[in-house]
Amino acid sequence: MCVATSGPGVTNLVTGLVTATSEGDPVLAIGGEVPVHERLKKTHQSLDAISLMKPVTKYSAEVVTANQLGEIMGNAIRVAESGRPGAAFISLPKDIGLADFTGDITHNWGKKLTQGGGAQSEIDVAAALINTSRRPMILLGMQASQTNIAPMLKNFLAKTKIPYTATFQGPGKWAQPADIETFVGRVGLFRNQPADHLLDQSDCIITIGYDHIEYDPSIWNQSNKRNLIVVDVIPADQDNDFVPTAEIVGDIGIILDELVDKLSPQIDNEFSNEVANALVLNKRTVSEGVQFNGSPVHPLRVIHELQKIITPDTHIALDVGSHYIWMNRYYGAEYARQVLVSNGQQTLGVALPWAIAMSLMFPDKRIISVSGDGGFLFSAMELETAKRLGVKFIHIIWDSASYDMVSFQEAAHYDGDTAGVQLGHYDVESYAKTFGCQGYNVKSADEIASVFQKAISCDVPVLINIPIDYSQNMRLMQDVIQSFVN
Amino acid sequence: MCVATSGPGVTNLVTGLVTATSEGDPVLAIGGEVPVHERLKKTHQSLDAISLMKPVTKYSAEVVTANQLGEIMGNAIRVAESGRPGAAFISLPKDIGLADFTGDITHNWGKKLTQGGGAQSEIDVAAALINTSRRPMILLGMQASQTNIAPMLKNFLAKTKIPYTATFQGPGKWAQPADIETFVGRVGLFRNQPADHLLDQSDCIITIGYDHIEYDPSIWNQSNKRNLIVVDVIPADQDNDFVPTAEIVGDIGIILDELVDKLSPQIDNEFSNEVANALVLNKRTVSEGVQFNGSPVHPLRVIHELQKIITPDTHIALDVGSHYIWMNRYYGAEYARQVLVSNGQQTLGVALPWAIAMSLMFPDKRIISVSGDGGFLFSAMELETAKRLGVKFIHIIWDSASYDMVSFQEAAHYDGDTAGVQLGHYDVESYAKTFGCQGYNVKSADEIASVFQKAISCDVPVLINIPIDYSQNMRLMQDVIQSFVN
Amino acid sequence: MCVATSGPGVTNLVTGLVTATSEGDPVLAIGGEVPVHERLKKTHQSLDAISLMKPVTKYSAEVVTANQLGEIMGNAIRVAESGRPGAAFISLPKDIGLADFTGDITHNWGKKLTQGGGAQSEIDVAAALINTSRRPMILLGMQASQTNIAPMLKNFLAKTKIPYTATFQGPGKWAQPADIETFVGRVGLFRNQPADHLLDQSDCIITIGYDHIEYDPSIWNQSNKRNLIVVDVIPADQDNDFVPTAEIVGDIGIILDELVDKLSPQIDNEFSNEVANALVLNKRTVSEGVQFNGSPVHPLRVIHELQKIITPDTHIALDVGSHYIWMNRYYGAEYARQVLVSNGQQTLGVALPWAIAMSLMFPDKRIISVSGDGGFLFSAMELETAKRLGVKFIHIIWDSASYDMVSFQEAAHYDGDTAGVQLGHYDVESYAKTFGCQGYNVKSADEIASVFQKAISCDVPVLINIPIDYSQNMRLMQDVIQSFVN
Amino acid sequence: MCVATSGPGVTNLVTGLVTATSEGDPVLAIGGEVPVHERLKKTHQSLDAISLMKPVTKYSAEVVTANQLGEIMGNAIRVAESGRPGAAFISLPKDIGLADFTGDITHNWGKKLTQGGGAQSEIDVAAALINTSRRPMILLGMQASQTNIAPMLKNFLAKTKIPYTATFQGPGKWAQPADIETFVGRVGLFRNQPADHLLDQSDCIITIGYDHIEYDPSIWNQSNKRNLIVVDVIPADQDNDFVPTAEIVGDIGIILDELVDKLSPQIDNEFSNEVANALVLNKRTVSEGVQFNGSPVHPLRVIHELQKIITPDTHIALDVGSHYIWMNRYYGAEYARQVLVSNGQQTLGVALPWAIAMSLMFPDKRIISVSGDGGFLFSAMELETAKRLGVKFIHIIWDSASYDMVSFQEAAHYDGDTAGVQLGHYDVESYAKTFGCQGYNVKSADEIASVFQKAISCDVPVLINIPIDYSQNMRLMQDVIQSFVN
Repeated sequence: MCVATSGPGVTNLVTGLVTATSEGDPVLAIGGEVPVHERLKKTHQSLDAISLMKPVTKYSAEVVTANQLGEIMGNAIRVAESGRPGAAFISLPKDIGLADFTGDITHNWGKKLTQGGGAQSEIDVAAALINTSRRPMILLGMQASQTNIAPMLKNFLAKTKIPYTATFQGPGKWAQPADIETFVGRVGLFRNQPADHLLDQSDCIITIGYDHIEYDPSIWNQSNKRNLIVVDVIPADQDNDFVPTAEIVGDIGIILDELVDKLSPQIDNEFSNEVANALVLNKRTVSEGVQFNGSPVHPLRVIHELQKIITPDTHIALDVGSHYIWMNRYYGAEYARQVLVSNGQQTLGVALPWAIAMSLMFPDKRIISVSGDGGFLFSAMELETAKRLGVKFIHIIWDSASYDMVSFQEAAHYDGDTAGVQLGHYDVESYAKTFGCQGYNVKSADEIASVFQKAISCDVPVLINIPIDYSQNMRLMQDVIQSFVN
Repeated sequence: MCVATSGPGVTNLVTGLVTATSEGDPVLAIGGEVPVHERLKKTHQSLDAISLMKPVTKYSAEVVTANQLGEIMGNAIRVAESGRPGAAFISLPKDIGLADFTGDITHNWGKKLTQGGGAQSEIDVAAALINTSRRPMILLGMQASQTNIAPMLKNFLAKTKIPYTATFQGPGKWAQPADIETFVGRVGLFRNQPADHLLDQSDCIITIGYDHIEYDPSIWNQSNKRNLIVVDVIPADQDNDFVPTAEIVGDIGIILDELVDKLSPQIDNEFSNEVANALVLNKRTVSEGVQFNGSPVHPLRVIHELQKIITPDTHIALDVGSHYIWMNRYYGAEYARQVLVSNGQQTLGVALPWAIAMSLMFPDKRIISVSGDGGFLFSAMELETAKRLGVKFIHIIWDSASYDMVSFQEAAHYDGDTAGVQLGHYDVESYAKTFGCQGYNVKSADEIASVFQKAISCDVPVLINIPIDYSQNMRLMQDVIQSFVN
Repeated sequence: MCVATSGPGVTNLVTGLVTATSEGDPVLAIGGEVPVHERLKKTHQSLDAISLMKPVTKYSAEVVTANQLGEIMGNAIRVAESGRPGAAFISLPKDIGLADFTGDITHNWGKKLTQGGGAQSEIDVAAALINTSRRPMILLGMQASQTNIAPMLKNFLAKTKIPYTATFQGPGKWAQPADIETFVGRVGLFRNQPADHLLDQSDCIITIGYDHIEYDPSIWNQSNKRNLIVVDVIPADQDNDFVPTAEIVGDIGIILDELVDKLSPQIDNEFSNEVANALVLNKRTVSEGVQFNGSPVHPLRVIHELQKIITPDTHIALDVGSHYIWMNRYYGAEYARQVLVSNGQQTLGVALPWAIAMSLMFPDKRIISVSGDGGFLFSAMELETAKRLGVKFIHIIWDSASYDMVSFQEAAHYDGDTAGVQLGHYDVESYAKTFGCQGYNVKSADEIASVFQKAISCDVPVLINIPIDYSQNMRLMQDVIQSFVN
Repeated sequence: MCVATSGPGVTNLVTGLVTATSEGDPVLAIGGEVPVHERLKKTHQSLDAISLMKPVTKYSAEVVTANQLGEIMGNAIRVAESGRPGAAFISLPKDIGLADFTGDITHNWGKKLTQGGGAQSEIDVAAALINTSRRPMILLGMQASQTNIAPMLKNFLAKTKIPYTATFQGPGKWAQPADIETFVGRVGLFRNQPADHLLDQSDCIITIGYDHIEYDPSIWNQSNKRNLIVVDVIPADQDNDFVPTAEIVGDIGIILDELVDKLSPQIDNEFSNEVANALVLNKRTVSEGVQFNGSPVHPLRVIHELQKIITPDTHIALDVGSHYIWMNRYYGAEYARQVLVSNGQQTLGVALPWAIAMSLMFPDKRIISVSGDGGFLFSAMELETAKRLGVKFIHIIWDSASYDMVSFQEAAHYDGDTAGVQLGHYDVESYAKTFGCQGYNVKSADEIASVFQKAISCDVPVLINIPIDYSQNMRLMQDVIQSFVN
């Protein structure tokens, strides 16, 4: 829920709302507008806000008579929260905002849609396909991360023991059965992970709560050659590389319960061995972290140190940049929605505002956010907001003096050349103190642990700058399986 | 499915597509377009067809690369047919239309969404409300007319014995239990029917497959004062006069089966008596028909005569105009989707093209279409199409020498004054023969039966003109209950 | 100016408005709409009319408060008439339509923009280019046909003696100097006319009031290789094949007066000879008309007969189809805007409504409209309107029992194959009489003259059907120069 | 000209582009986009950027084939710069961006429209009205600030000696005749200035290059009661309070030259006295500045100090906030476009980026920007950009620890109550040094002059914080005439 004034107040919402819509997060935004009789005129801050917002929201409506207010508000909230959630925008002209409310507040305004389970016929087809598959894989997407379906998902994964991967927005290792490791790591952006290799080998992929925007089907399901079973809250877009063999639409939790009883999957040995290899590979990479010392600091070492201060109920927000690839790949989440990430629009600057919001919602929990030095500046001024609101969190900046995620991809495409990716130095400790917060400039790897400890005990927001060593970033684009084999 | 050339070919589709979308009829329309590289230029027949079509379709997309064709076609068909059906539009630039198809035709393109049943929690709430209601009523809408759910609907109505009404697009008397009359007539446009009186008295209304466009909630459910249970394929729009107490979304047939087993409705005597009165009132009106003689002919007499030639498998298409109010109210349909009607957009000229389409689909069935003399001219030239295609049907024109449905409402609003509603005379028999078809100009009521018999035996399209007596049209706006009581 | 009810009333306007906008004709259209507080609801005939109309008009606005009415009406009329004219649409919700008018009617509402002349600097560049050119050509477009600039245009052509061609919408032979023939015939659709050959040879083309939609620059100015001088009321769109060397924007009449005094064009002998050849070629083709006899009738014979009854103040409306290519090429107009034609959108069915409108505006003038048998049916029902209004005109149908203009182009592209272009027979005489009008079915060429004479003396609308011989239509696509040379 | 990546790169442009369009500043923005064949898919950073940008730009187009690139770029630049300038947006899909350019670079791509003068008839009407007026006033708007028309404007004002006011975006005192003071101060936002009083008394107002968005006609020309003469580059929107008596559209400079020779205005004594009073009033207010001492500092004292360091060629950028009202009213500019201001959209955060841009364009000139402490944070991170680019400028922050411009208006509306306007403290000196720039926290009025001198000699960007005394802000809304009289 956010409220903004007219004109630039509204246009400044656009990036946030497109991010919410792409990430499936419900948001109600209300923007001011000139009085109704001036809506087509050029007057201070006049704007066709509805047309502007339509491409970036699920619902965009202008209130032009007072008795529409309940209806529009009700529909906006309902649309924002139902199905795959997203942003809704209401344009509120000045005179309507000042008018008396005329609706009936006892109505059940804005009630979220309650969905049932899937169609029996599709469930039966899906069950048959899974039961005859010998190399089944599950791909979990953002809607599988909803907290309320976590029990059904865990039950499903525990009973079927089918290996699973996830997108950057999907559930992580927390969904794993207690008795067997089946989470083979995340996939995303580049098709080079152990889990990608398993998807490639699979004869039947089950996607759960997955949206194309998370990881293009053209990357992981080219030409749609295998059986594809889709479980989701809304119908799937058809795509040359994504046409489901069976499609089960409804409440994901209910569907998983309906489906699990019909399944008795059998996985052949060869595939089980590949799964085991993948698990080994991922662990090997993560375990490298401890060994990296000095300055600048290797990403895996930072993750190694972070693991130590992430408690089972810590909330984490990731910005976008090279750090988010390392983090998504090599940090396995502890519970549903523990890690917030913008992977659909890849919006720079999300981490700090998310950290503030989480601090407001969970004042007693540990809150950690991570960004690059470039992404941090996109919303750095919000530190004033944080301080004024009296919240606390730890924000860690991986400092590469560049927009590194763009830089290493440019270098890969243009024979090592880069352009427009350099970033000037700024003093993070000084920045934090400018706003009455705490800041630390870490010098080398061995300082991290103690700085983290100091940060934990602070009662104001803390910024921590870590000079980062991205010299091994090409690994992010290389085939992990290949590099392992050789 | 329709195909049109670029420019006016596309703009001429607009009225048809908005009608299809408002009436819930699936249509795929493909429009030509200038070559892709000229799409932003002013060149012969260039048009921003996508923006034009967005407001009148469920899906509107332009193919700009050949490999999008399968995807866009698949999504268009899928969207057109799924949920509440409607129109989908594809803009096909000339160069793409001439390019080779590159997609994979083995894909499951365009598969309609298969929905499951409703949410158990909502079903339980609904069942409790219905079981405690003493004056329950059912309002059937357009999606309840789908042929494939007719058995479940009939079962539901038979087992619950709850009285039902329907919109002009909803099911009619065919859905009634065998052992008891529960169809209390249709509602629509004016709130003055016996069924309106029953809705008004009801403490719990169950809408099934109903869309607001069929009959405004502000008319029949003002201020949303009673329990409202909604069964539909898509979530409902919230409205000051329509906020469901329970809302069950999914496949209507499955939901009805899930719900019916939990119901044991009890209707109090007073309400049962009101239902009985309504049934009597409706029959009394219909039975007036036989007595009206001479010329011009009373609408109820025409309906009386029509009843005689409507076999149980006759297909009927209604145009818009005063005739459609009389027909919708006083003709009870025999089976699902027997009568086609445009009541959402109230599009003049639909009857003749529908008759042609039905004749193509059901060449062995009797096809009857009805229009006013004004509405007929909106698509009268399609008689050339009908003749050329070799189809046959009977089209009856209720001739009032005016746009009467506008006329009588103008008169009611402006103390008897009317404007712009006069229509000149044209010779229907001559018109038919101009195109090589058969035509009859009926002179008086007693000729109708024999002319109908002649028409039945024709093997070309037949037009029949009947001079109509609309002097009692004010009855259409008067309160039937009141006029009965007094 | 046209007014329509909501829903289909509005959608039925779309084709007319896109035609007006593409042809530069000012139209104000007012469409009904549901009450303001219901504008976002699905209710009878609700429609997002503004979004629908934006792609086909110059201005589209909804009145949502009563005090906007003067402003919106004023701006709509102003935009429709100013610059290059076109359609404007106003959506008028029912409650606003019933509200009291609150504006000030003494305001100068809707005043058309008064433009000045061109920029001196551009005029000077243009004059220098024309004066140094040796093969200058003028291409006249639709805005050069405006009646009020005819005197300046004639003066310009008389003083410069530069040869000119025109698009189908541009001025014809009436603009020619009294002392020398400089009109070398029209260009359009296919690049094969004598005037096309001259454009091709020209080193400096001056377009006056020309819009790309009339005749694609990619056809007549490929790669923009020569000097191009543009005189128009609005700035030109840039195009790979149309980037002006000098561009003079303002009131065309004033600009022509400003420019003509600076010109002393010199045309070399070779080019003058080519011009002379073109004039001979065109006359030779026209003169063939008299010789074609029998049935079906050759197009040039019909034109030959038409010439005899076209008085200097006759108004003519052409529909779209093969007939309009023959007519545009081989009938030279007598005065500005004598011939109405839809060449931008090529909208079938325009001729009959235009004939009715012209009959209302010029009740004492002779009105002739021409269509094919296919195009006629697109608006044939308007004969009822014509009869009811008491107007008169002569409408001539060139009957080919097909959509011939599509047919001959299909045949040319697909080795003689055609599809979907056949049209059934209908009896035009009978059609006319059905509506109380007069009709004639001409049997052969030698009957035409006498039928035309009978038609002239009728005081009701007259339809005349002429069986047409389109066997030589391939000539329309062949290179006239080539066929002449060989 | 700006370039951004796809997704959030594009959405982050929206606020800047709407500002440019509202302020009449030409901008070409190019945004990245997913490959053409993925444009309708949900894939990383996919966005319907064209629909998004249409409401905030003059031109928005997507390149979908390589040969459109020259055309679209040409039209975008042309539209952005012609008439009233504004923003143009081009969406460049990744595959098109990588394709070879195929256009002809020798074409005259993107040439700005060259306009001529006005229509003689309108000029004559205007001249007659002005010559018979006895209380003429001129209102200068944003297009009158264009540098290239400054000589004609000065000549016009010098010869006619008509008193003039200006919007915040219009020219200031620099346009005054050498021999007589005729600039009576600016008008804007609140109708309470001496110049407002004169407009109110005037019988004939001449607007030059004025757009409604600068200062609503409903404020200064209610009911359109007097003669109104409009000189502008584009036609005016009609408004209940703005319907020109004469409207002259074309190149403003040429029009002023055409008009001035026809004028011999006569101003009556009474009005001349009112003008003299206005001049006295404005000077009296400005002259108060020197007397205010201590801390926090009175706005007029800051302006007094600023005047001392503003050289005749200093460039100034204002942010939005209470400071911009004080500055616009009490600082008279020295030359055309000396002061940049966002008054149409009133976009917070413009000053710092403008200062950077001016520093790049005019590296040898003194650059001063001013913002509030709230507005500064909207773009404060760009100090990193400034430092990296090596530019220098002086940015002055008027520190009120609040969003004061909102605050004092809230207080005025809600009996002294305010909400959501508090801002936390941040240390500006520390902020500047965080980025390697220079910063000063001024403590009291008497420090300002010396700090300004230090700032002038810095070779890095300088931030200066001044605690501001806004206790007299109610004066900004009070009637200056009234307060003077009493």
